[in-house]
Formats: sequence, structure tokens, C-alpha cells
Amino acid sequence: MEIAEGGVTAPLGFRAGVAECGIKRSGRPDLAVIVSDIPASCAGMFTTNRIKAAPVLVSKEHVRSGTARAIIANSGNANACTGEKGIEDAVAMAGETARLLKCSPHDILVASTGVIGRHMPMEKILPSISRAVKGLSRDGSEDVARAIMTTDTKLKEAAMAVDIAGTRVMLGGVAKGSGMICPSMATMLCFLTTDADIEPPALRRALRKAVSTSFNCITIDGDMSTNDMVLILANGRAGNPTIRTRSKAFDVFSEALDELCLDLSKKIVRDGEGATKFITVTVKGALLEDDALKVGMAVANSQLVKTAFFGEDPNWGRIVCAAGYSGVPIEETNLSVCINGISVFEDGTARNVDADNLRRSMSQSDITIVIDLNMGTEETRIFTSDLSYEYVKINAEYTT
Amino acid sequence: MEIAEGGVTAPLGFRAGVAECGIKRSGRPDLAVIVSDIPASCAGMFTTNRIKAAPVLVSKEHVRSGTARAIIANSGNANACTGEKGIEDAVAMAGETARLLKCSPHDILVASTGVIGRHMPMEKILPSISRAVKGLSRDGSEDVARAIMTTDTKLKEAAMAVDIAGTRVMLGGVAKGSGMICPSMATMLCFLTTDADIEPPALRRALRKAVSTSFNCITIDGDMSTNDMVLILANGRAGNPTIRTRSKAFDVFSEALDELCLDLSKKIVRDGEGATKFITVTVKGALLEDDALKVGMAVANSQLVKTAFFGEDPNWGRIVCAAGYSGVPIEETNLSVCINGISVFEDGTARNVDADNLRRSMSQSDITIVIDLNMGTEETRIFTSDLSYEYVKINAEYTT
Repeated sequence: MEIAEGGVTAPLGFRAGVAECGIKRSGRPDLAVIVSDIPASCAGMFTTNRIKAAPVLVSKEHVRSGTARAIIANSGNANACTGEKGIEDAVAMAGETARLLKCSPHDILVASTGVIGRHMPMEKILPSISRAVKGLSRDGSEDVARAIMTTDTKLKEAAMAVDIAGTRVMLGGVAKGSGMICPSMATMLCFLTTDADIEPPALRRALRKAVSTSFNCITIDGDMSTNDMVLILANGRAGNPTIRTRSKAFDVFSEALDELCLDLSKKIVRDGEGATKFITVTVKGALLEDDALKVGMAVANSQLVKTAFFGEDPNWGRIVCAAGYSGVPIEETNLSVCINGISVFEDGTARNVDADNLRRSMSQSDITIVIDLNMGTEETRIFTSDLSYEYVKINAEYTT
Repeated sequence: MEIAEGGVTAPLGFRAGVAECGIKRSGRPDLAVIVSDIPASCAGMFTTNRIKAAPVLVSKEHVRSGTARAIIANSGNANACTGEKGIEDAVAMAGETARLLKCSPHDILVASTGVIGRHMPMEKILPSISRAVKGLSRDGSEDVARAIMTTDTKLKEAAMAVDIAGTRVMLGGVAKGSGMICPSMATMLCFLTTDADIEPPALRRALRKAVSTSFNCITIDGDMSTNDMVLILANGRAGNPTIRTRSKAFDVFSEALDELCLDLSKKIVRDGEGATKFITVTVKGALLEDDALKVGMAVANSQLVKTAFFGEDPNWGRIVCAAGYSGVPIEETNLSVCINGISVFEDGTARNVDADNLRRSMSQSDITIVIDLNMGTEETRIFTSDLSYEYVKINAEYTT
């Protein structure tokens, strides 16, 4: 496995293009199309929010067949809380893209990110799709990564090369997140491509696994969007023997996909709104993996923990406190906490720590918190950012 | 039922006193004693955090008998994550208070608020208790309210008078909260007194009910402390016929206690760290009361909702989104949302709202959000504050 240049157009047989349809006031590209030259296997993971945006509902339906040709995505409008009209609009976006690519509308996946509760300006969107399709190119990935940005400050793309049974296979991806539009709801979108030949069930399984340890382990502010979506297209152009589950080739592919998703999810956290720190919370010694996740998420989402790290304040009591209200039956006398490798709390007892040393270590931009529950062998890692003035500023400004 | 002057010393037979023992660097009083002249019925509600401070463990034990004489409380040090030594210290505080009041240590309830993970400076605390006891007075309530403050900016006390079977009964209370020490963990403490004659089981029942609709329905930042505690002492000095559960007198007393707790809990939210808004989230039409609570808490704890209200940004999509990830199986097409009486979302459809009008209404300091799930008849009310720069500032400063 090696890190490669580029993003969604790094794998063979993928092109991408963008257009400005004028939803974003900035006049920057806000519509993106990613196309596989031939039908591809596909899989998707979607928000579990009960309020699902129209493109989520449409893409969930379209992903079911296991094959697709293209992804159409826009930023600036979430097409969420828009009722029947919203569904019609998402279907129309798929329909227009399908007409231009001469395929079935069911082979088009749709994604949106932006303000909730507004109808899509279809009169601007539909004509823009043909401009994006006309501009499809083998090096369109960076433009796509930029077109889906909202309050993101950095574009997020990554690619991996991996050897599968002697064939070089590429995987690529773009992501957006941290972002609120205008500002509105944070949405995490990630589009992945690969030229691997892989069966849909194997692709689904690999995606589920990769997302569970990457995008499902990051949190900026604990607010789960109505529009979150991770999509993957696999067109088989690399010519490797078809990957099936429970094979050596599957493990190799799956590992590469894990790395790709981890890389993109960390990029989202590093670009978290107002973030000044990248914090890795490792929870080990849990009885159940879900317990580790709950403790990690309670700590990573605690406003008190996040503000303490912004302030570089070695106030470790807040970490212990958040672990305590996580809902997991932890035992204080078993609990140990390390910050940047410095043990602050061990088996329920506060350590005598050189506070200056600890505070100095907290001035780094990368922080590690290790919480050992000492109850079992399960473990997880959560990535989060701190909570700064800038976060409040970004999210307190007017939508309108 | 009428609102009365004063706090914990408003009921007959209660005195209070404070002392400076030097835990707080400000040199202001940081130790408080509340004493009933005669043995009182008592009840308590405690944090459900798995990490419980030593005074929580000791008071839970002492409250079990149903009778107590006094409460000893300090601010500046939480006596949490302090192991066996912490328990010994809390027991010693009870012991010294009992010695001075000539009663059993089991009749003393202990409470602490402040930084987690530091041992109590017992050499400062023990001598101060006798100074506080020497200063006990019938008008010591305000001093107590001040001595338990941490980052609180306003002292919180309240009293009620109620007629029970022809006897005038008083109820009083002091509370602290919103507060982080130095700053550390927010802790909610509330001490209630009444001269009502009431059996311990009835007192417990009334307290549980009152807390469930007041202190358990407020949230500043979603972080539950290791030290939260609500205590009540009832000394019977009013001379009313003893109140038992399932009686008219119980209902009257219980209603007055509800009002008292509601008043004190609202005072905590109004003094929330950095708060500029007092937000009431009403969730109705829920199938289960717990569903209403979950939806209300998800909305009230959403950083995106809180920053939007700080920014006076009519971004109602964030409310709908938080309701969606609350874990309650709500239906978008049933959902309606009103902000300050203005309908913004009705039966799953965005209303055409005059945005200027809505934004103007959001500039008020009191905000109401009504969410109708339209699924059942259960309802709840949550009180919260917004999330401002000031919150981040207060909580980003050094403990040390």
C-alpha cells in the first residue's frame, strides 16, 4: 500500500467536472459530477438522523442495485426539510445527469450540503449540470473537492495505490466537512472511487468497515447532519481478478480503503470549525467495543474538555467526569488517564504531575488522550478538535 | 402559595453561617453551614455520574436514615477523584460539624464544589467550621448563597409560603450553578429547608418530583458534574399536622416545592456561563415522556442551536436536525416548530416566514422554542442558555 497523488480521478476510468450554478454567493463552483466511464459497483453509508435530506433518500434507493455510473453533488443548499418537492428536485438532478450520460437515472447518486429548509433553485441547477458534464476531465478531482467545500478552509482529497494479486489498483477520494453553509448544518460528504474489480457485497462490507473506524469516529461538535453520506464507485478498470469477501485480496483492498477513509476523516477534523488542536482520544480496556465508543464520544464531545484544550489548561478532571457520565458502568478505582503520554490519573488516584511540563505539552497542536478503563480488552480511537472563540463566531453569524 | 423573602433561613428553626477558609483565592467565604435547631426529616438527590465525589458518597449514606441536623458545604475544591483520603476528609468534615452541634456525624450532610483531583486542605477547613458554627444566624441565608458561588455571577435564593391545613409553612432554598471553579467542573448544588412537618417518605417523593421537572430539566453545556446534589431538611417547626403521601396536604406541599425548585433552577440557567439568552424548549406530542425529554435535551445541548441563538440567527433547520438525531423515532412529516410563537416548520413543511420579523424577535433575551412531534400526548419543558464567546473564555482559562 502506498500513498498516491490526486483524488477521485486517480483510479482509471473516472472523470470529474464542476460548474458554478450560483447557489453559493461567492460565485465559486458549487456543483460537481464524478463519472465512471463504465458501470461501476457501488456502495453507500448514510446519516442515521431521522430527518434525512431528499438526496439521502434518493441515493439510498439508487445504491441498492449495487451498480452506478456517476455522482452529482451540490453545495450551498442541503435540500433537507423540503418535503415532496425536495424529492422531486433530487430525482430531477439524477434524471438530467442520466440524460447527459445516456444511462438510467437509477445509476446516478445525488448528494447535497448547505442550508436546511430551502427549495433548490432548479432553474439554476439543471442547466449547470450539462456544463459540468461538458467539462469532465481526468484531472477534475481537485475542482470537485473545492466545489463541495462550504466553510471548509482546506480541500480534502487523497489516493492510495495497492497491489492486488499482481495488479496495481488505485483508490481515491474527496471529502468535505467541518463546514456549515452560510453557516448552517455541518455536513460530512465523502466520495470514493476505485478501479478495483470488486463485487458489490464485498464493496459494501469493506466500506462499512472503513467508515466504522474513520468517519464514525470523528466529531467536531456532536451535531449529526441530515445530509451525511459516504459513496464509493468501483469500476474494475484495473483488471484485477474480481475481489470477493473472505479472500486475501479483500483484506488487502479493505485495508487500503481503511487508510484512505482514515486519512480523509482526519483531514475533516484538522479543518474543524475554529479548531486549533487535533485531539486523538483512545479508550482501551473496555468490556465492549461500544462502551469504548461511548466513553470516547462523551469525552470528545464534552464542551468542558474541548474548551480546556483550547485554553491549554491541564484540567484532566473534566476528562474523568465526562467518562463518568458516558452511560458506561466504569469504575473510578480502575480508571487511568494519560495526556500526551503523561500519566495524570492512575487506578483512581491523581498523580503528582509537573503542571508546567503538562501545560507545555498541551501547547502542541496534536494532543493524545489515553483512557484505560481496565475492565476488558476492547479499544477504540476517536478524533476531535477543540472548542474555540472562532467556532462560536462561525456559527453565530446570520444564515440570511 | 406565595413567594416570600429570603432563602434557607426563611423557615422557622433554621440558622446558617459561613467562614473563609482560604480555598478560594479571592479570600471570600468558601465554607457554609446550614443547621436545623432540632432534628429534621431529610431527603437528597445526587449526581448519576459514575464518578462521584467523596461528599456525594458520604451524603448518600447519611441521607438514608431520613433524618439530619445540618449541611456543611465548601466551594473551591470538589473533593472528587481523591480516593480513600477524599472519603476520610468528607467524613472528618461531618465529624467536626457534629462535634460542634453535639449530634451524630450521620446527621450531617456534606457537599463540595470546585476543582477535581485535589485533596482538601483539611488544616484550613476544620478550624473554619467552628467559626461558621459560631456565626450561625437567622439571617445567614444570603451569606450561604454567596459562599457556595464559584463562577456564578448572581446569588441564588428563593422562598415560598404555603398554607397547609390552616398552618403557614415556609420553604426556602439556595443554589449554585453555571459555575466552574478556577474554572473547573460545573456543579449544581441546591440546599432546601422547610419548617413543614413531613414524613421522610413523603419528603423524598416530593423532592424527586420537584427535581424531575426543574434541576433535571436544565442544561448549560450538557456536562453532568461529579458533585451535583439537591438536599432538603424539614424540621416540622411550623406545627402543621404531619404530611403523609397521598394526601391533600402532600399535594399542596409538593406543588410549593415544585415552584421553589423551578425558580432556583431557572436562576441557574439565567446565570449560565456566558449566557445572553434564556431559552425554554417545550416538546409536546411525544409518545413517551422520556421521548420528549430526549428531543428537548438534544435541541438544548446542540452547539449549533445554541450558537445560532447567540447570533440571533433564525436558522431553525438546526432545531429540526437535532430533534432528528435525538434517538427518538420522530417523523418529519408530523413535525412542527415554533420560535417565539412564530411557526417556522409545520407538518414537515417550511413556512414562509418574514425573516426580519423572526430575527427581531430573536433579539429578546427570553426565547421559546416549541416542538410538536404530533405523535402522542406527552410533553416536557427544558431550560437552557445560548453558547457565547464568553462561555469559551471562562472555560479556556487555566485551572492552575
